[in-house]
Amino acid sequence: MPNIALDASHDASRRSWVPSANQASTDFPIQNLPYGIFRLAADDGTPRGGVAIGDHILDVSAVAPLLGEAQALGALLAAPTLQPLMSLSPGAWTALRLALSNLLSAGHGEHRRAEHHLHAMSSVEMFLPAKPGGFVDFFASIQHATNAGRTFRPDNPLLPNYKYVPIAYNGRTSTIGVGGEVRRPRGQTRSAGEDAPSFGPSRRLDFEAELGVFLGGHSVQGEPVPLARAWQHVFGFCLLNDWSARDIQAWEYQPLGPFLGKSFATTISPWVVTVDALRPFRVPVRARPDGDPAPLPYLADDEDQATGAVDIVLETRLATARMRQQGSEAVRLGRASTRELYWSVGQMVAHHTSNGCSIEAGDLYGSGTVSDDDESGLGSLLEISRAGARSLKLPSGEQRTFLEDGDEVTMTGRCIRDGFVPIGFGRCVGRILPALAG
Amino acid sequence: MPNIALDASHDASRRSWVPSANQASTDFPIQNLPYGIFRLAADDGTPRGGVAIGDHILDVSAVAPLLGEAQALGALLAAPTLQPLMSLSPGAWTALRLALSNLLSAGHGEHRRAEHHLHAMSSVEMFLPAKPGGFVDFFASIQHATNAGRTFRPDNPLLPNYKYVPIAYNGRTSTIGVGGEVRRPRGQTRSAGEDAPSFGPSRRLDFEAELGVFLGGHSVQGEPVPLARAWQHVFGFCLLNDWSARDIQAWEYQPLGPFLGKSFATTISPWVVTVDALRPFRVPVRARPDGDPAPLPYLADDEDQATGAVDIVLETRLATARMRQQGSEAVRLGRASTRELYWSVGQMVAHHTSNGCSIEAGDLYGSGTVSDDDESGLGSLLEISRAGARSLKLPSGEQRTFLEDGDEVTMTGRCIRDGFVPIGFGRCVGRILPALAG
Repeated sequence: MPNIALDASHDASRRSWVPSANQASTDFPIQNLPYGIFRLAADDGTPRGGVAIGDHILDVSAVAPLLGEAQALGALLAAPTLQPLMSLSPGAWTALRLALSNLLSAGHGEHRRAEHHLHAMSSVEMFLPAKPGGFVDFFASIQHATNAGRTFRPDNPLLPNYKYVPIAYNGRTSTIGVGGEVRRPRGQTRSAGEDAPSFGPSRRLDFEAELGVFLGGHSVQGEPVPLARAWQHVFGFCLLNDWSARDIQAWEYQPLGPFLGKSFATTISPWVVTVDALRPFRVPVRARPDGDPAPLPYLADDEDQATGAVDIVLETRLATARMRQQGSEAVRLGRASTRELYWSVGQMVAHHTSNGCSIEAGDLYGSGTVSDDDESGLGSLLEISRAGARSLKLPSGEQRTFLEDGDEVTMTGRCIRDGFVPIGFGRCVGRILPALAG
Repeated sequence: MPNIALDASHDASRRSWVPSANQASTDFPIQNLPYGIFRLAADDGTPRGGVAIGDHILDVSAVAPLLGEAQALGALLAAPTLQPLMSLSPGAWTALRLALSNLLSAGHGEHRRAEHHLHAMSSVEMFLPAKPGGFVDFFASIQHATNAGRTFRPDNPLLPNYKYVPIAYNGRTSTIGVGGEVRRPRGQTRSAGEDAPSFGPSRRLDFEAELGVFLGGHSVQGEPVPLARAWQHVFGFCLLNDWSARDIQAWEYQPLGPFLGKSFATTISPWVVTVDALRPFRVPVRARPDGDPAPLPYLADDEDQATGAVDIVLETRLATARMRQQGSEAVRLGRASTRELYWSVGQMVAHHTSNGCSIEAGDLYGSGTVSDDDESGLGSLLEISRAGARSLKLPSGEQRTFLEDGDEVTMTGRCIRDGFVPIGFGRCVGRILPALAG
């Protein structure tokens, strides 16, 4: 078991005075306490920060006076973004978590006063937890990199830099949202055998199941963050669907990488599960297979190897319009754990800042599509359909290679470990709207 | 001559009561009036918006009461960013420009009151004009794309998508600054003939001379901005040096494009020259050579072809530490006009939003390195040195293939046309600091 300190907030016997938080099926027991930005649907007020507890949200800044020494920290959640909280350091994050855990614990004396500031999740509207200044999308699953590369280079799927460089590119921040509808993009594509491209709706629209990482604190331009200090800059995690138009991407991406094939939309889950909540689920980074090179020194750290991975099982489900009409359950497309990633989150931070690039509170990373070695563990339709060569059969009698209009993709994430209360990430949902008329 | 409306602010006979604005050599005559964010070096106050006039800066919000109907617009420049002004529309931008032009005109009755809010440029500190939410770097010079491609593919330098797609990638916003020192990045590089990479200071550090474009207004996610309306979203232009570590870039860029080879620093000039100031210098987009495909319909517009280019001559100069010590003048590395670009700024906006990607006030575009057909018109050392194969001889007796520590790169930009007062962009300066010790 990794040497990660736990505290009373992780205690499996701790229960909340919010009844729904004590149900085994909830994603949000008192051991989780993820943050999000919400507004009462019936309310015109500014969005503000809340913490999820069972099927409710506690308005954190409203209960700040009940948080003792963490009062000033709680008051930061009056802002319409978590950035003021994210800009602090791990000590502050832990202090606020402990104060909220205590306030929400069964038997707390201020239970009645806090209850006034508890809102049913069904009554609120959720917003982006933070407006990222930068969005970096990694490519950290070697299985995904291999599967995706195989569609272009069957005999040599992995490029020579993969096992040395935590490959990444910069994504677009203006189109990151917390769910809802995603308009099918139009763009330039070129069909096989044609000389010239044409412009129209993407016909190879895909999802990518990723882990999102919100950074905290900041670093100074010109000064790398060493791997040993990388986790001080990790605030928390969310689910991330990196929608991809494979046909647009294939035509545009040489030589400068993905652009319009990705920038039309990125959907994240509205709840940010903190690093503290995930402490019980830290595991060793997956051992590199024999023959793989060791990471270069700036990416090597014994403690990171021992504790740098997180065991979050991501699942993606699909429900077509017809399936929803028929009342049939969404089908599972893939299920894989982020513990399988070739590169750790710490290595991502160390690499990203190794050239002196500065990071800022609210910066978002995507892990890259999370796929594992198993046929049931694929995180994109590109992989599931073998780049469109194989159709997925659905209970409605429909088939899919890529996404059709009306399809709804739902990601979930869950952490389970003996002796601990399971925690989850809520849902990351997006539904495909038809392209605009040309 | 393109059909672009001019007004009294462009009149060559208009002179200012600020004497230095009337000198032929100034970049900032009354016909220019670029905006920037400044603070008095001696002052602790918040940075705020100013307009350059000769060798002075007028504190715009301080003189707002003198701006008549544009008072509320001028008051927006009390902010430490131009984003509030950028978020408006062309009508507002023109109104503020005309009011400032009138106030600064020789003979204006409020001359004495305005003069109190005029500060010598030598006494102020300049800041980023806006913190871009997104930074998109294009590749719009076909000469540069060809020269750069030749280093990898001598017989086939241009990829098949180039003449159809305004190629671009997302850059990093956190490391954009208005000049000063740039720390040489460290990173992974792999020398020719070696199997494994090593980590250390970049040995192929380069500049890229680009035009920067600040966007204004905003667009709705899912709704493309058509080419015919693209210029409504262009606020103004600056100089942009896209520092590049060629060795880091070469090893990392497959398959997702440039990342750490670019993200360590981007330097822009502190002054944003407005679209209005550049009206006299709009020219037809360079005709495509016979045999090139026509742009696809979403990138084709007669008016854009007739008026979509801007004739800004960019020059880059180099002064090494030894040259500065010897008192020798900086040598010119390259000189080329942005009128040569293969893709217009309007086409960039139309392409960028064609998939529904939204744009926001303060978004920054880079044009990509501006090179022309001439040996004297190359915008990077990669091109000048033929990827390091040829040394540049300097008056100090030194030679250069790529940048050495202590080298200072200065970009300037100037617009000249018969019958109009020339305007300029000021300077975009960066000096290379040695890499941090490993």
